[in-house]
Order: sequence, then structure tokens, then C-alpha cells
Amino acid sequence: MGRIVNFEGVRIVAAASVVGKEEHLGPLGGAFDEYDESDRFGADTWEKAEAGAQGRALALALKKAGANAPELLFAGDLQNQCMASAEGLISYGIPFFGLYGACSTATEALLLASLALSAGAVKCCAAVTSSHFAAAERQFRFPLEYGGQRAPTAQWTATAAGAFVLTKERAGVRISRGMAGRMVDSGIADAANMGAAMAPAAADSILTFLRETGTTPSDYDAIVTGDLGKEGSRLLAVLCEREGVRLSAKHEDCGCLLYDGSKQDAHAGASGCGCSASVLAAHYLPRLTEGLLRRVLFLSTGALMSPQSVQQKGNIIGIAPALLLEF
Amino acid sequence: MGRIVNFEGVRIVAAASVVGKEEHLGPLGGAFDEYDESDRFGADTWEKAEAGAQGRALALALKKAGANAPELLFAGDLQNQCMASAEGLISYGIPFFGLYGACSTATEALLLASLALSAGAVKCCAAVTSSHFAAAERQFRFPLEYGGQRAPTAQWTATAAGAFVLTKERAGVRISRGMAGRMVDSGIADAANMGAAMAPAAADSILTFLRETGTTPSDYDAIVTGDLGKEGSRLLAVLCEREGVRLSAKHEDCGCLLYDGSKQDAHAGASGCGCSASVLAAHYLPRLTEGLLRRVLFLSTGALMSPQSVQQKGNIIGIAPALLLEF
Repeated sequence: MGRIVNFEGVRIVAAASVVGKEEHLGPLGGAFDEYDESDRFGADTWEKAEAGAQGRALALALKKAGANAPELLFAGDLQNQCMASAEGLISYGIPFFGLYGACSTATEALLLASLALSAGAVKCCAAVTSSHFAAAERQFRFPLEYGGQRAPTAQWTATAAGAFVLTKERAGVRISRGMAGRMVDSGIADAANMGAAMAPAAADSILTFLRETGTTPSDYDAIVTGDLGKEGSRLLAVLCEREGVRLSAKHEDCGCLLYDGSKQDAHAGASGCGCSASVLAAHYLPRLTEGLLRRVLFLSTGALMSPQSVQQKGNIIGIAPALLLEF
Repeated sequence: MGRIVNFEGVRIVAAASVVGKEEHLGPLGGAFDEYDESDRFGADTWEKAEAGAQGRALALALKKAGANAPELLFAGDLQNQCMASAEGLISYGIPFFGLYGACSTATEALLLASLALSAGAVKCCAAVTSSHFAAAERQFRFPLEYGGQRAPTAQWTATAAGAFVLTKERAGVRISRGMAGRMVDSGIADAANMGAAMAPAAADSILTFLRETGTTPSDYDAIVTGDLGKEGSRLLAVLCEREGVRLSAKHEDCGCLLYDGSKQDAHAGASGCGCSASVLAAHYLPRLTEGLLRRVLFLSTGALMSPQSVQQKGNIIGIAPALLLEF
């Protein structure tokens, strides 16, 4: 059996996104369902704010889904022990699978939800992920009050949550194929350059997907990565070119779309589970349903690392699960 | 559709367990495949030691599985951002789904692997989880050097890893039914009493499973929880009794089996992802294949919390996914 899984009739029938102030001020600002000017989402800590955003994103997606009620939740985030998902989603009482794929969690969750639907286990699933700039800074780097300097290759963790409802029973954007990611260690230990750590994993997944399906970039309207940012996107092009594959204008990166580099201080671009999730929900899915895009290879990109692993000088491990989205 | 998923032909065909010194000295000591007297598994930090144990457990399980080679890995652990799984398993190059279900991760991983096999996505999967006493103490409480006192209700995180290979293509212990867990917040915020935080989730899952399948405890040879410990086990009996269900002698808890309470200083019992995984691999699966048990309802139990959520006085959220194991 090859790496690619073919799904029959699995569709994303509703999606919603909730973002913070910076994301609202960015080029896609008008496309998100809701934003919170204060980034607090009604909570008194950044961690609980992220949980609030995640809960709110699911509420909006469920409202759009109408009669389709999820029987399983697949969710994750960047916080220690994935607490934004647990605290943000417990009130729904829906059986829950907690996931950790770093910033690749949106695609991981959609892929596992597609497997659950394909197994006939349930008729409807939801996938939810989030990230929060201030929670992630405290978690992985320094509390905001410290006022740390950022390297030019550093990325800005998106304050954003995305939620998706999947079923076989209604029209929507099809998840027609999926491929789990392979962990790739390319020797990068610099937590301020996650784009470089993730690019080899994205290249591995894209090249494997193209090879196993016998396709080329010209067979897709877009090949979208989650949050490689400027640095990682440049490296991805080089790595693919080295294997004889020119991505050129087909490649887009959610991390490069979320902020306006000329006005917003986001350095190499956006990152975080919420980056690819919110951009998929607010930008790519509408472009697919409106017919502007018909066939998109979508890969959220994750950098597996922790505060401890960085302190212990461990390498950052990249991973990039892939989905083929069609309408 | 109800909560329970029926699986056709999904079997655990190989399992392996690797433990530390205390676990080897306990009542099940002779049953584990390997142990490391130093708890270090060849590494120079506790975090990397846990990764080493997880990698070693998978190596042993793959050896036992012979020709059956996993195409997907489902794995998780208790460390921040699940680094023991990432660092411990990357060398295998197998497409990877990272999971976080706290100490319920063993059952979560087996359930998701069963779904992937049922969807026909792959022919063989592996599920791997681990925990490490010293890594967990530093992570959730204090570094060992601090010499902190432990409450009588506190549990001892097992230094243990378990790995399982699943396929439909060979004989083995059947996973005939599965049920994802629902998150339950019963108002416990005391991280030194996780048994009490998890018992309501275990009761919710057991009572739901019995109700939806129209069965009673007498229909099972054992109803096994992951790591409720003494305190949680006592509460589970009370909570079930309150709903008219007497678990009595049918209930067993991996956390109460791993250490000898009269000789080992484990307080309320063992905990950790590696507790239920290693006890399932070394104790329950052999008892099933030897015919000593024929029908076991198995629920790893998880306490969803983080260092931040405890500091912010958040409640500990319980979850208990369930599997029906038969031979």
C-alpha cells in the first residue's frame, strides 16, 4: 500500500475562523468570521484567551453546519499539554481526541477526521486548532513583559483559531486524498528559524505526494504550506528544484499571507496551529467553493520542539501532513 | 449513531514493554521485555531517556511483529509538546500522528490505529506511548533535586513505555469495540490527587459503554482502568454504585498493579502514559492470549492539565477512552 489514502465523499461542510487584532489588520482581515481587538476573548490569562478563541471558532462552525452535529472532535494547539483545546472545547461534551502536531495540527486533525468518517465510525466530525501569540511567547520564548528582541528569521505566532465540520452527507469541499507526514530532522536547532526546520519536511511530503500520484505542480491550482514564512518558502523552492520539481508560482504559504510585511512587524511571517487553520477556513475554502481554485494540495507544517528540547540543544523536527482539497 | 464503534478483524499482533528500575522491582517486574536499572536508557537527560525507552519499545514490538511493518505510527507522551515521541520515534521514518491524551494516550492511540485499519487506509499500524518519573516530576512538579514532599493521594509516574503493532492480517487479541472519551470536569484542581480528577471520566465511559452495549460488569472478565490509583479506584466504585452498577471484583487498575504498596513508596499508585501501556503489553495481553481472560474492557485514564493550568488554578479535566479486548 502506498503512502496516499484516497477518501470517498469526505467533505468539509462548514468552517469558521476567529482571530486577534494583528490578524484582523492584515491583508485577509475582512475574511475572518470574528476578531477580538483585545486578543483576550473574554479571559483573564493568555492561555485561557486561546481556549476561548477555540471554543468560539467551534461554536461558529457548528452554527454554519446546522443539522450536522459532530460525534467526534479532533483538536490540538501549541500550549503545554494542549490545554487550549481541552479547556476551550470541554463544554461541548463531544467525545474528544487530543492531538499534537505543532503547527501541522490543522491538517493532522482533518486527516484523522477523514479516516474516522471513512471507517464508518461516525457520520460527522469536527477538527479544531488554535494558537495565540502571547501564550506561545510565554510558552516557548519569554513573557511579553521581557521585551525580547526577535531575529529576522523569527516568525510571529498567529492569534487565531479555525474549526471545521466534516461529513459525507452534504456538499462541500472534498478531502479526496490524504497523506500523513514523516518526521524530518535536518539539523536545525535554532528556534528563531522554524521555517528552515520545517521546509525539508514540506519538501519531503510534496515530492512524495507528486511522485506517488504521478502528478506535477501544474496539476494543482495551488500548493499551500502552513507557515514556512519567507525563509522557509525560499528553502522549499530550492529543495524541490534540487529534485527537479519547480513549484514557482504554484506555491503559496499561509504564513506569508496573514500579515502585511511592509506595515506589520511580523519578520519572516506568521506561524502557529491557528495560522494555517484560519487561512484555510477564511481564504482557501471560500476560493474553492467560489470556483477560483479547483484543486489545492494543502500541507500544514509543524516544528516539533519544546522549551526543554531547545534548552537541551535538540534539533527541531519538521513534519507536514498533506490533504488534497477539491471542489 | 451511538458512541460505540465496532471493529471487524482489528488485532494487536505484537506488543512490547520497557521499564525502569522501580517498575522492574514491582509485582509485574518479570513480565516486562526489558528494564534499565539506571532509568537512563543510554541518554544524558531524563527527557531523552524517555525518548530512548519509547524507541526501544517500538524496536522490540517490531521484532515480534516480524513481517508486519507499520505504515502509520500513533504516539504520545506527557512531556511538553510530546517530545519523547518525536525524538524517540523519528529514526523509524514511519509516517506519524502525534497525540496528547495525558495518561489516556495508550488507549487513544490504539483506538485511532483501529480506525485507520478499519478505513482501509493501511494494513498495519503501531501505537506507542511512554512516561518517565524524573521527566514528569521536572515537567509538572519539581526537579528531583528539590526533594519535594508528596501527598498521600499523589501518584508515582511510571518510567515505562509500551508499543503495539496492529493489523487485520494475523491472529492476535481482537480490538472488537472502541469508544472515544468525553472530557469531564468534576471540579478537582489538586494536581496531587489526579485519581479523583479522573474517576468521574472513567465512570462516565464505563457506564456509557455498559448502557450502549446492554451489558453488565458480569459480562466481562475484567474492567481495567489505566491509573486511577487507590484513591481514584475507590471513587470509581462509589460513582458506579450510585448509578446502580457494582464493579466489585471485576475492576482492576494498572496503577494499583505496577508497584508493591507495602514495599515501594508509590503512595496512591502508579500513573503516566507508560503505566497502562506497559501493563497492557506485559500483563493483560498475555493473560488474554493464554485464555486466563477472554473479554476485557480496557480504559486508559487521562488527567488533562499543564504546569500553567495548575498555576492558574484551572480544574483538572478527566478523559477515559475505552476498548473492548477479546481473544
